[in-house]
Amino acid sequence: MAEESGGETGRNILLVLEYDGTRFAGFQWQTNEPTVQGEIEAAIQRLTRESVRVTAAGRTDAGVHAQRQVVTFVTGSRLPVDQMQRALNALLPADVAVIKAQEVAEGVHARFSAVHRAYRYTILNTPVRSPLRRLTSYHMGAALNVDAMDEAAQVLAGTHDFAAFGGPMREGGSTVREIKRISCRREGDLVLIDIEANAYLSRMVRHIVGTLVAAGRGALSAADVAAILASRDRNQARPAAPAHGLCLMDIGYSKELT
Amino acid sequence: MAEESGGETGRNILLVLEYDGTRFAGFQWQTNEPTVQGEIEAAIQRLTRESVRVTAAGRTDAGVHAQRQVVTFVTGSRLPVDQMQRALNALLPADVAVIKAQEVAEGVHARFSAVHRAYRYTILNTPVRSPLRRLTSYHMGAALNVDAMDEAAQVLAGTHDFAAFGGPMREGGSTVREIKRISCRREGDLVLIDIEANAYLSRMVRHIVGTLVAAGRGALSAADVAAILASRDRNQARPAAPAHGLCLMDIGYSKELT
Repeated sequence: MAEESGGETGRNILLVLEYDGTRFAGFQWQTNEPTVQGEIEAAIQRLTRESVRVTAAGRTDAGVHAQRQVVTFVTGSRLPVDQMQRALNALLPADVAVIKAQEVAEGVHARFSAVHRAYRYTILNTPVRSPLRRLTSYHMGAALNVDAMDEAAQVLAGTHDFAAFGGPMREGGSTVREIKRISCRREGDLVLIDIEANAYLSRMVRHIVGTLVAAGRGALSAADVAAILASRDRNQARPAAPAHGLCLMDIGYSKELT
Repeated sequence: MAEESGGETGRNILLVLEYDGTRFAGFQWQTNEPTVQGEIEAAIQRLTRESVRVTAAGRTDAGVHAQRQVVTFVTGSRLPVDQMQRALNALLPADVAVIKAQEVAEGVHARFSAVHRAYRYTILNTPVRSPLRRLTSYHMGAALNVDAMDEAAQVLAGTHDFAAFGGPMREGGSTVREIKRISCRREGDLVLIDIEANAYLSRMVRHIVGTLVAAGRGALSAADVAAILASRDRNQARPAAPAHGLCLMDIGYSKELT
């Protein structure tokens, strides 16, 4: 049974990735589209000459960015992790980078070991659009009442059935999630919406943002947002905010990983 | 002599532009390359049906960005400036925007009326490159001594012959310029080099940055930089830093423009 390479008995490697999602059809591998997973697996394969499959903590949609995405994979390679990181960064395109690499215990899994994911949605709230910030923020010329947005956001904090804000990741799956923290605040000419949840439904953050923006424009009260949540009806929430304002900020794990 | 449109007797319009220089072969119009001037003139022409030539305060090189570039042009159009601004922003591509438009007195000229131009050079000084900041900063993994850079920078403040740091904009022109302010400082993981001068030689900021980076790495002392300045020899300065770290930040005018 001794295979020539480690296979499932190999080392378990965790990578923290940063990427600009502009060019990608999302994180998850697709046949004919550039994806972050496709880039990282191709780089690992070139480096280790193994065909690997990485698992990600959060499968970001097309156009969504990440400051800290986490992936894990198993490899038979004996390359020290700091050399692995440097080599992968040399192989990866300019819009993806490995900002940290470490060997972790056998049972650590980027997705199943994660206990929360933090996302930030960035709105550029200025009369005129900004060429230099267009790829990482969503421009809204209309004034937003950020206090009203934050009040409406607090309605969503806690454990709820979020069916009004997105579908389950797989058919028949639960639509209950826990938002541990949610806040809306102004920082200069930006409005930042930060959400930390155990996990998300499909497009949940962007549906929440679309709904909070309606609250910020005075079209919905906090009570209206509570009624939308209670309805569990996807036709009640406002349309999803565009992908390019969204960024995966961090993944939380319950315990030491090594 | 009464022409059908205002021509040189028309209104004098000043526009403040922001642009992402990544895609452009520089500000200045070129036959077969995308330029910021080409975009803005095409948008004005579509709006006013006049063939116009705009004058810019600073002619940025290929890949250089602007947070505030100023252009002026004369038009026979009677369109109010706020409508002109909105219409131009609808016509311009996503990487160029008019962030302000105003009518100014007849003698005001974006270039000749300007008394200073402020540029910022942004270095991302982290071990690993950053996909999300790759277009607007120059990544340097090696540690930089910012105090040493700032000390060397102060050697350049004042009125000097800067021939060592760049050529004159036209054959036989003066190479004397006045740097009114120059500073190097750390802000988080960025090193920011701010320069405000009456005007610049070709690639002067980028040659200065390349030289100050050598000081930050311990390869040059402030006295060495003084000797380079005194040499007036372009072979003495360090190679120009890459264009994508550079941004035109502001243009200063001596008096009220309207």
